[in-house]
Amino acid sequence: MSGVSLTVAPTSSPDDTAALSTLTAQGASAADVLAVIGKTEGNGCVNDFSRTLAAAAWDPLLPDSSVTIFSGGTEGVLSPHTNLLVRDPTDHPGHDRGLVAAVGRTRAVASRELGRPTQLTLVAEVVRTLVSNLGVTSDDVHLVLVKCPLLGPASNGPDAPHEDGYESMARSRAASSLGIAVALDECTEADAINALNGQDTVWSSRASASSGAELNDCHVVVLATSTAARNPLRAVHGVMRDAIDLPAVTALLDQVHAQGGTLLQIFAKAEADPTGTVRGHRHTMLTDSDLNPTRHARAAVGGLLAAARGNGAVYVSGGAEHQGPPGGGSITLVFTVAATAANNAQS
Amino acid sequence: MSGVSLTVAPTSSPDDTAALSTLTAQGASAADVLAVIGKTEGNGCVNDFSRTLAAAAWDPLLPDSSVTIFSGGTEGVLSPHTNLLVRDPTDHPGHDRGLVAAVGRTRAVASRELGRPTQLTLVAEVVRTLVSNLGVTSDDVHLVLVKCPLLGPASNGPDAPHEDGYESMARSRAASSLGIAVALDECTEADAINALNGQDTVWSSRASASSGAELNDCHVVVLATSTAARNPLRAVHGVMRDAIDLPAVTALLDQVHAQGGTLLQIFAKAEADPTGTVRGHRHTMLTDSDLNPTRHARAAVGGLLAAARGNGAVYVSGGAEHQGPPGGGSITLVFTVAATAANNAQS
Amino acid sequence: MSGVSLTVAPTSSPDDTAALSTLTAQGASAADVLAVIGKTEGNGCVNDFSRTLAAAAWDPLLPDSSVTIFSGGTEGVLSPHTNLLVRDPTDHPGHDRGLVAAVGRTRAVASRELGRPTQLTLVAEVVRTLVSNLGVTSDDVHLVLVKCPLLGPASNGPDAPHEDGYESMARSRAASSLGIAVALDECTEADAINALNGQDTVWSSRASASSGAELNDCHVVVLATSTAARNPLRAVHGVMRDAIDLPAVTALLDQVHAQGGTLLQIFAKAEADPTGTVRGHRHTMLTDSDLNPTRHARAAVGGLLAAARGNGAVYVSGGAEHQGPPGGGSITLVFTVAATAANNAQS
Amino acid sequence: MSGVSLTVAPTSSPDDTAALSTLTAQGASAADVLAVIGKTEGNGCVNDFSRTLAAAAWDPLLPDSSVTIFSGGTEGVLSPHTNLLVRDPTDHPGHDRGLVAAVGRTRAVASRELGRPTQLTLVAEVVRTLVSNLGVTSDDVHLVLVKCPLLGPASNGPDAPHEDGYESMARSRAASSLGIAVALDECTEADAINALNGQDTVWSSRASASSGAELNDCHVVVLATSTAARNPLRAVHGVMRDAIDLPAVTALLDQVHAQGGTLLQIFAKAEADPTGTVRGHRHTMLTDSDLNPTRHARAAVGGLLAAARGNGAVYVSGGAEHQGPPGGGSITLVFTVAATAANNAQS
Repeated sequence: MSGVSLTVAPTSSPDDTAALSTLTAQGASAADVLAVIGKTEGNGCVNDFSRTLAAAAWDPLLPDSSVTIFSGGTEGVLSPHTNLLVRDPTDHPGHDRGLVAAVGRTRAVASRELGRPTQLTLVAEVVRTLVSNLGVTSDDVHLVLVKCPLLGPASNGPDAPHEDGYESMARSRAASSLGIAVALDECTEADAINALNGQDTVWSSRASASSGAELNDCHVVVLATSTAARNPLRAVHGVMRDAIDLPAVTALLDQVHAQGGTLLQIFAKAEADPTGTVRGHRHTMLTDSDLNPTRHARAAVGGLLAAARGNGAVYVSGGAEHQGPPGGGSITLVFTVAATAANNAQS
Repeated sequence: MSGVSLTVAPTSSPDDTAALSTLTAQGASAADVLAVIGKTEGNGCVNDFSRTLAAAAWDPLLPDSSVTIFSGGTEGVLSPHTNLLVRDPTDHPGHDRGLVAAVGRTRAVASRELGRPTQLTLVAEVVRTLVSNLGVTSDDVHLVLVKCPLLGPASNGPDAPHEDGYESMARSRAASSLGIAVALDECTEADAINALNGQDTVWSSRASASSGAELNDCHVVVLATSTAARNPLRAVHGVMRDAIDLPAVTALLDQVHAQGGTLLQIFAKAEADPTGTVRGHRHTMLTDSDLNPTRHARAAVGGLLAAARGNGAVYVSGGAEHQGPPGGGSITLVFTVAATAANNAQS
Repeated sequence: MSGVSLTVAPTSSPDDTAALSTLTAQGASAADVLAVIGKTEGNGCVNDFSRTLAAAAWDPLLPDSSVTIFSGGTEGVLSPHTNLLVRDPTDHPGHDRGLVAAVGRTRAVASRELGRPTQLTLVAEVVRTLVSNLGVTSDDVHLVLVKCPLLGPASNGPDAPHEDGYESMARSRAASSLGIAVALDECTEADAINALNGQDTVWSSRASASSGAELNDCHVVVLATSTAARNPLRAVHGVMRDAIDLPAVTALLDQVHAQGGTLLQIFAKAEADPTGTVRGHRHTMLTDSDLNPTRHARAAVGGLLAAARGNGAVYVSGGAEHQGPPGGGSITLVFTVAATAANNAQS
Repeated sequence: MSGVSLTVAPTSSPDDTAALSTLTAQGASAADVLAVIGKTEGNGCVNDFSRTLAAAAWDPLLPDSSVTIFSGGTEGVLSPHTNLLVRDPTDHPGHDRGLVAAVGRTRAVASRELGRPTQLTLVAEVVRTLVSNLGVTSDDVHLVLVKCPLLGPASNGPDAPHEDGYESMARSRAASSLGIAVALDECTEADAINALNGQDTVWSSRASASSGAELNDCHVVVLATSTAARNPLRAVHGVMRDAIDLPAVTALLDQVHAQGGTLLQIFAKAEADPTGTVRGHRHTMLTDSDLNPTRHARAAVGGLLAAARGNGAVYVSGGAEHQGPPGGGSITLVFTVAATAANNAQS
């Protein structure tokens, strides 16, 4: 268990690791990094080498126990950046709780397991272990981020699912997200397996999964509130019911403000509504053969959330299968509170 | 001079003209149409045949005196639709003013004139004439829409500007918009010519220009408030200072609500900030060789404005050269008010 | 039954119908047109409005009995053009045979039938009827072109296949092509149904199917040699075993030259090899999330065939499911011969 | 001066450096590598991170004196691979000559110098020095490869050229290529400067320049024939007059066969003909706002050259400004000959 700090740092390119230098000022170092969670400027799809480049730059600098999660795609006003989750064991005076985080990995996921119940179970197991290690309950968890593999052409073989790479990304995200839902008691494992086979009615409000060719296991980050740590970080979470659910965003911001908080970061998922419409109005994200739906969705939801926050360095990830309701997405706001009595309020 | 009604109609495809049938219920017909202003689902760039297809479907059905303006690109949550401006000579009881509109065309713009002072002057002349015909002052004008040509490969010749088609779209929008600014007394003609040659400091807050291969003249629509017409339509306009200027949008919505109005439509321009940043945060719209900046910008601003309005059938057009401040864009809200004393308030 | 002429005409835009005027010089008119088979410059995928625009321009000018087939995508050096198949009842002196053509349509294909055995059967029936009407045997047939529907978002419903639009294009082409294979006795109906369910080992060397949103039935053109017509047109056909099968192209050209022929047009299908390799070398067409595989394949094969022919106005269509061997494609060369004794040779 | 060997190795991803292991079998090691010249699978344009990833993987493994040149874009049938130029000091018996190579770098090119005479001069100086170091004359040179910078958004400033990143790639290639032309006595420096300012009539038949964001100096490789080295490698070069110039390719292959050679590799440049036509037939590469012209051109010429060679691991680079005639490109074939008397023939 560890209290954490969160640093949001702009990047000049996918391989920009300069954010590490900011840790010194905090009395920390690369050895204290739990996770680097970045938005990189590739297409966010199968052949997004910006993610691989970022991982190649960061991995040698970080401890083996840490994880990296790079989500490609900074369409529209989204701004490339990294979110550094760093161990912060300090007891900050005037706080009775704080954010804690734990990270881990599944074993490598074989091609034949990808997007299937085995992946779901592997993710669920790691999430459960991390929640347990943190000494919190599933209700204390605000966000579980997973980076999971996709099916490359080299994955093809007699046991491999018969599907293309872009489609495999969705299946991998679905399995990871349903694993999170099971681990956080948001649904039963049986329901999750059913959902994986095509029922869309089960989802997690705290899952954020993205897939990529740059890894073959699943990287997992759990973020929770705990009274065992005392720091200025807090979080609230919820869901956007659709891609234009400004009231949901406003309601969460109101919660932040009610606690006297200052918004630090938004983590959100976005997707093209699978019905082909948003509130009854036809969208064209699913029929645009020049631009994949996840790119459209990030751009649109990114435009809204960047406006809500006041800048584009928000973490908006595309492909929200079982991460919030269909057409919508999970959303978590991390914020800081001052060291006052107000911090005793529930968050 | 004519009072007008505005009908926002969803389309199932670029050649969907079914909105015409809604006119009958209003006691109107195709002969009463002043302008069809549509968002179609192409790439909004040089080879956007959705605009040409829409024009091919609508033009034979409309009177010669009307104009069509099709703006391509419904990225993200934007929803393809048409806005029908229809003559409404009725004196609606309980109103002391209303929206009026006039439409016109320049002569054909030659390749060597495109994006140059001649185009600017041609547009300014038409706008001035239309404002005069409406019997209003430039202060009464809320929006001037222009559809203008681009340079196709067939345009190349000894007198043609040396530039590619996508770049020519920006130059054509710039000349049209500066022509509007001159005609609305937002700047002098000398300033406008200077701006066309690279000074960015002059712009119109009421200009909305888009370019396309489907025409070789400029189509112009002027929308204004007049006490010579009495109908429930009103408008407010302003600018977004950047692509995430939610406060500007909220302030305009507040004006609508202060008048007891019901929002009917938003017309807005969007662009990738030419500095490469939005509020100091790097964006990647200008360095994405897979996706043009105008597509990025429409998706992002469309996400915000669709959320503000509650659906995606908003008119967001990409490429905001001299249409609002650099990186931002002009924005006009059209709304209806009930037939009460409140309508006597200024709008 | 009708002898035909073939005119290859460049187009300046998808709605360019000027080729019709060339018919007058031939003593023919629009009423004599059997088929307009064009390459238009859209993306060739789901939202290719260049095809719809072309159909909207041509359909009103042609007799109801004719068909249009527009294949989108002129990547690389491919040049937009139309191929006009026109009735030519003249007995050309010095010829003992000639090319004949017949065209027809299936009934509308319902969404639930698309890409399924019903579509296969519908196409096979029309092809059989046309072959019979021509009074030729299946061995005399050089090419069967089919334009077939795709699944648009409006097609979604309880009975609709669960797949996206781009994938539905492949399934529709597959069903049409297997229908051709059955009608031309290249396989049994049982084999074809098996192939439709995932066996790739059955294909037609004379099928060329393309799909689009611009129609909901299937348009069919059959081209054959017959001694019942006497004209200078001849054809040879074969397959490219892969996308770089220059020897196959050279062998067909040698056949043309052996007959003293002058090449008039090449009709070919192209696809990204589904194994992810071409002759053991990895290609990246299937993992490029910015550009669909059919666009890649047309560009590459178009580059080869345009070089073989000497200009880019060749008909290369993307997506070669069951149209030639996997990774390759069917190919037909149409040529003219002089009125000499040499024409008595088999072609 | 050094005799060289050339190894063409497939890559499984941009960061695949496994080709190094093949050197051991040759009795060589990474320390002997002069240059790694690779095709990587990005978009080949501004935001191609596959090039940066490749450089990040290779650079730490190579001696400082070596250079890397990664050209992005393996559209169509092109296959990602690397070409390793390795020092081979062995006197191979039965040879009276062989291929030699030298590599070098310019100093860093400032933004204000990019695409301008200074860059041209810097490249020319390095090429002259390398030719001199090799002890050959400019007539002995078959190929000069240059990798040069582009203008990133960070390059913007008061002294920076006012242009976008994609356009800056073309200007950078132009300056490098004209520098090569000057150094190889293919034109005067005055002619080259004029050409840089818009005259297209000067070009090098041996230049191959590509630009990228992954470096800020220019990497240069010179490949020549010399009697001071004795090895089985030979080369011939020429130009394609346009993108479909199969006769030029055939003529070069005939030269190879006339010497009893076995083709090892083709290095070629490709571009969209700036006139908008190829042999009078309109192409659409310059008006396709979804896909940049360089991607189109690589796909098309790659389709032709892969067919000519028999596999897709050919080095086809996009953007042929002053590298061969407008619309065409330079082309060099490297081949091996057996150790026989035939090797005494001129190559």
